[in-house]
Amino acid sequence: MTRQDQKLSTKPYKGTRDFYPEDMRLRNWLFNTMRKTARNFGYEEYDGPMLERFEVYAAKSGEELVNEQLYHFKDLGNRHVAIRPEMTPTVARMVAAVIHQIPRPIRWFSLPNLWRYERPQRGRLREHWQFNVDIFGLDTVLADFEIIDVAVSIMLSLGASSKEFQIRISNRRLLNHFLAEILTLNQEQRNAVCKAIDKREKITRDVYTHMLTESGLTPEKIDRLEKILDLDWNDAENHPAFESRGGKELHDLFSQLRRSGLDQYCKLDLSIVRGLDYYTGTVFEMYDLHPENRRALFGGGRYDDLVSMFCNDSLPGVGFGMGDVTIQDFLTTHRLLPDLPPPIEVFVALYDATCLEQSLTFSRQLREAGLRVTVQLEPMKLGKQYKQADQRNIPIVAIQGPDEIQAGTVTLKHMISGEQVVLPSDQSEATIRGWLKSV
Amino acid sequence: MTRQDQKLSTKPYKGTRDFYPEDMRLRNWLFNTMRKTARNFGYEEYDGPMLERFEVYAAKSGEELVNEQLYHFKDLGNRHVAIRPEMTPTVARMVAAVIHQIPRPIRWFSLPNLWRYERPQRGRLREHWQFNVDIFGLDTVLADFEIIDVAVSIMLSLGASSKEFQIRISNRRLLNHFLAEILTLNQEQRNAVCKAIDKREKITRDVYTHMLTESGLTPEKIDRLEKILDLDWNDAENHPAFESRGGKELHDLFSQLRRSGLDQYCKLDLSIVRGLDYYTGTVFEMYDLHPENRRALFGGGRYDDLVSMFCNDSLPGVGFGMGDVTIQDFLTTHRLLPDLPPPIEVFVALYDATCLEQSLTFSRQLREAGLRVTVQLEPMKLGKQYKQADQRNIPIVAIQGPDEIQAGTVTLKHMISGEQVVLPSDQSEATIRGWLKSV
Repeated sequence: MTRQDQKLSTKPYKGTRDFYPEDMRLRNWLFNTMRKTARNFGYEEYDGPMLERFEVYAAKSGEELVNEQLYHFKDLGNRHVAIRPEMTPTVARMVAAVIHQIPRPIRWFSLPNLWRYERPQRGRLREHWQFNVDIFGLDTVLADFEIIDVAVSIMLSLGASSKEFQIRISNRRLLNHFLAEILTLNQEQRNAVCKAIDKREKITRDVYTHMLTESGLTPEKIDRLEKILDLDWNDAENHPAFESRGGKELHDLFSQLRRSGLDQYCKLDLSIVRGLDYYTGTVFEMYDLHPENRRALFGGGRYDDLVSMFCNDSLPGVGFGMGDVTIQDFLTTHRLLPDLPPPIEVFVALYDATCLEQSLTFSRQLREAGLRVTVQLEPMKLGKQYKQADQRNIPIVAIQGPDEIQAGTVTLKHMISGEQVVLPSDQSEATIRGWLKSV
Repeated sequence: MTRQDQKLSTKPYKGTRDFYPEDMRLRNWLFNTMRKTARNFGYEEYDGPMLERFEVYAAKSGEELVNEQLYHFKDLGNRHVAIRPEMTPTVARMVAAVIHQIPRPIRWFSLPNLWRYERPQRGRLREHWQFNVDIFGLDTVLADFEIIDVAVSIMLSLGASSKEFQIRISNRRLLNHFLAEILTLNQEQRNAVCKAIDKREKITRDVYTHMLTESGLTPEKIDRLEKILDLDWNDAENHPAFESRGGKELHDLFSQLRRSGLDQYCKLDLSIVRGLDYYTGTVFEMYDLHPENRRALFGGGRYDDLVSMFCNDSLPGVGFGMGDVTIQDFLTTHRLLPDLPPPIEVFVALYDATCLEQSLTFSRQLREAGLRVTVQLEPMKLGKQYKQADQRNIPIVAIQGPDEIQAGTVTLKHMISGEQVVLPSDQSEATIRGWLKSV
């Protein structure tokens, strides 16, 4: 037991956030905007438990994550469990459980809270919410196109424009073809080169060149590699590496993006790698175009094996995951955070104790009309009640004193314009709705 | 690493649930209905992190919970943390952090995912979502009334009627007055009697009487206790115990419930105790009136000390917590689960590969009009596409073959009535919306 005079800290656990009503309104706006866009594309929401068996991550999620970042422990029944650090193993498990019953393609999205033990820093906390969008069971590059369309549509629905973000697209198959067939590197050399490319933007040129040389590349091969990594779409298709399956996929994808007018948001960038083993075809990352913010905001791509950890089938998929922390940083940088409508629309003031019943009845009527109403329950000087409504940014105050009750009217005050009207109480809804439109 | 032929189980961790799209739709409907009602009463949503420091629960949450039910462990930095089993400590911490800045009363709600290590059974899993509604900083019983009004309104908004649920109300102060002043029991005896009352409905009469006798009650006192526990509101106010602060509170509360027409959903029941230390005044529980379901669905009440664990102030509050598992059982028992609108409204079929561009453009137009649209990306026999739309309960199929493209029209098929129309594609939205209304 804590002694009465030893107070506990009011801070949340390190690297986590409290969502006060103002923060929560923003979170709800963000998530509901994402949801609406995904649903308009025919994607359906799912969720799974926060805890999964440890094995689910031990098998696939990579050593760094499991050893250094995973929250895991034994439950009271000695089962080894982990708090989900990513959604993919959960969705793979869920899909595997119904793989023979569910029509394909499967278009699903989720909004899980994910946890990783990390050093908290800008854009990275110990917990975040991640919008996951995936389409399973389609081998065509048109699925890759649709996923990019969803990602672009979400950015647009959040108010961003082509001047503020860009999706950089590559294809793992193409890069692999170039490294294997044209630069004639073996598997080990290719892995080492991919690791270097993945770090290319974060390390100095010298360190980068050194890494490539260590990987077995001659200066001449380094030169050829740099040329392909810097290729613009206009020159790309003449490059011999494009005469390959990966090249055709990129060609088809960019043609479709152009036909649909999405090419203005997209750019070829063969230096996009996104890890080593997971992705098999198209890969992409979303970049903030603000010069201060050079890190990728989120990314995704095509993977060929989602479910084989759980069943004898395999199932290709394309998807992306978008974290709420980095997106909110993006929206803040570009001043795209919206002015949300007031959470409480009407403050029903209390003239005095004898008028309480009328206040409660009137509040009820407004609520039944769908309005968000708070009611003063304790007698208090009217001036103080107005002041409270003002402090809390409630745009409209309604009051029924003895005169109004006698006459069947209500006094409404618009807290911003100061306008005040007295009108029959059954006509108040229309006036309130009119005023709310102008708030 | 798992060997390729050893597949992991597709089942979720014991006592938890996967929410497939159908389950998720229901969960979203339930939560959004709760949210809407709370917002109409001027309550604002908040949230806090899933993990809190262990001390937050060690101090207050009771031995059984901490020792037998709490998920807790050391993080990689050796901090002792716990997964939240209830929301109260989190909200207390959050309120304490801003107690001098925030206007009162504070009306807040949340929808946290909570975890307890329990034996899974009907109505009780290891995780559930709990709708928490609280009003802080008001000493009047009108706040208790408002909280009950919110609880009733939520039940009504879920489609329940006064024949299906009942809120049973008591007052801890009144019961304590009766036990202390009228039955002249000391503190220890009162605690023992309250424990027995709390078990009254779950144990046999003999065991119950034995518990009371052990607590120090004579047969005469047991008789007087039973009489007050069985009191109806009509006889209640003549009882001498009602000449007390608790009695006046109950009187004021029931008078207000009657004036507001809520007494039809409520009943006096002085056997409602709800634990020993936490609550100080009004306590209530919501009961399912179905004979097969005699357990309380949820409960709440007034507490005087929410924040003193975290700061030097104290703050009274009234609130309740409603779990999603028991509420869904209630809705299932009473056949109140809604037929939700179709998640996908239009299936845009693909006549053949040459018509793809038109399919994508038409899908985009429907989405921009706010419709939920899935589009066929791979050529497939039309019959099979119709079958797929049918299997997936998509009510409308749209198709543009070469003839339609030539004429600027679209063929729409209503999958339930079988009705089929050809109309200019820019007029299709109105027809689709009309058909959706009748789905």
